[in-house]
Amino acid sequence: MNHFNLKTYLTSNLGVDISEIFFSEDNYFEREYNKGDYILEMGEFCQHILFVEQGLLRQYAIDEKGKEHVLLFAPEGWFVADRESLYFNEPSKYYIQALENTKVRLIDDEFIKKIECNYSEFRDFNTRLLHNQIRTLQNRVMMLMSQTAEERYLQFIKTYPDIPLRVPQIMIASYLGITPESLSRVRKALVSNSK
Amino acid sequence: MNHFNLKTYLTSNLGVDISEIFFSEDNYFEREYNKGDYILEMGEFCQHILFVEQGLLRQYAIDEKGKEHVLLFAPEGWFVADRESLYFNEPSKYYIQALENTKVRLIDDEFIKKIECNYSEFRDFNTRLLHNQIRTLQNRVMMLMSQTAEERYLQFIKTYPDIPLRVPQIMIASYLGITPESLSRVRKALVSNSK
Repeated sequence: MNHFNLKTYLTSNLGVDISEIFFSEDNYFEREYNKGDYILEMGEFCQHILFVEQGLLRQYAIDEKGKEHVLLFAPEGWFVADRESLYFNEPSKYYIQALENTKVRLIDDEFIKKIECNYSEFRDFNTRLLHNQIRTLQNRVMMLMSQTAEERYLQFIKTYPDIPLRVPQIMIASYLGITPESLSRVRKALVSNSK
Repeated sequence: MNHFNLKTYLTSNLGVDISEIFFSEDNYFEREYNKGDYILEMGEFCQHILFVEQGLLRQYAIDEKGKEHVLLFAPEGWFVADRESLYFNEPSKYYIQALENTKVRLIDDEFIKKIECNYSEFRDFNTRLLHNQIRTLQNRVMMLMSQTAEERYLQFIKTYPDIPLRVPQIMIASYLGITPESLSRVRKALVSNSK
C-alpha cells in the first residue's frame, strides 16, 4: 500500500526544509480514521486542510432527493478541504468520509494563514493548489457537459488509475454523472475491445 | 446600461486607494471590443485578467464534435481569465468572446505578480477571487450532476438576472447542459405558473 509523508512531500515540492515551518506537531496533527468514518459532515465548518498519508477519502454531497454525488476521491498524496466552507467560514454542503482505514494530517487553517505571511514558498504552494483545483473543476464541468460515458471513464482512470479497484462501481458512476448500468456497459466494452 | 470602473471597484473592495497601485495606464489598459470579437482563442496563451467595465463576455469551449459549451458569462463587474492557461502557462482550451460591444480593462499577469508582493491587500483580493471561482465551479458541478432543468434555470437567473434578456436561449441552454427545447419548456412552465 502506498504511503506518503506530509513533511517529505512538502520539502520536495517547496524546495525548503519544511521542518523549520512545521516545528510543532500541534499545527499539523495526525489522525486515523476507520473505513466509514466521517472527517466532515454537512452543516459543519471545515477548519483544516487534510493531507492523505495513507488510505482513501471521498468528498460528496447528498441532494434534496437523498441521492449522493461524489465531488472527488482523495487517495494518498492528495490534499482535500472544503475550500468554500474554510475560506468563507460557512457551513459545509459536503461530507468527507474515509473509504478505507485512512491516516491523514490535518493542517490548521489559522496556522496556514500565519505561515503564508512568513514563508512565500508556502504561499506560492497554496496558490498552486488553488489553481490545480480550478483546473480540475473546469475539466470536470466540461466532462459533464460534453463527454460520452466512455470518454468520462477513460479520463477517470487517467486521473485515478487504481480507484476502480478500491471503491464500489456505484461511487464511480456517481462521480462520472452516469448510471451504474451505463458504467458497467462501458467497462465491458473496454475489456472486450482490449482482447 | 450598467457601467463599472475598475479603479472604483478595487478601491471600494480593497479598502485602499488603488490609484497608488495602478499608477500607470500601461499596467491595466483599456480595450474595446465589438460584438462577436475574440479576446482569447483556443490554443493562445491567456496573459491577462480581464475586468468587464461595460458589455458582456462569454468563455466557452468547442468539443471534438464541434459543439459549443459555455463555461461562463461575464457581465459588467466580473473578472474573467483562463486561470489554467494564465497560471500554468499552457495554451488555452477556451475562447473568450464579446457578446455585446464591450469595454474591458486588461490587467497584465506579470504586473499582478509584482503588486501581490508589495500589497498584501491585493494578494488577499486575488485569493478571494480564486476561492470565489472554486465555489462557483463546485456549485456548477453539483448543478450538472443533481439538478433538474427547472432547478438549473432558477439558479441561473439568480446568478445572472438580466442575461436571459441579453443572449440567445441556445447559449443559456449550453451553459445549463440541457437542450434548447428543454429550456423552452421550463421557461413556458415558469411563465404560466406565475400567471
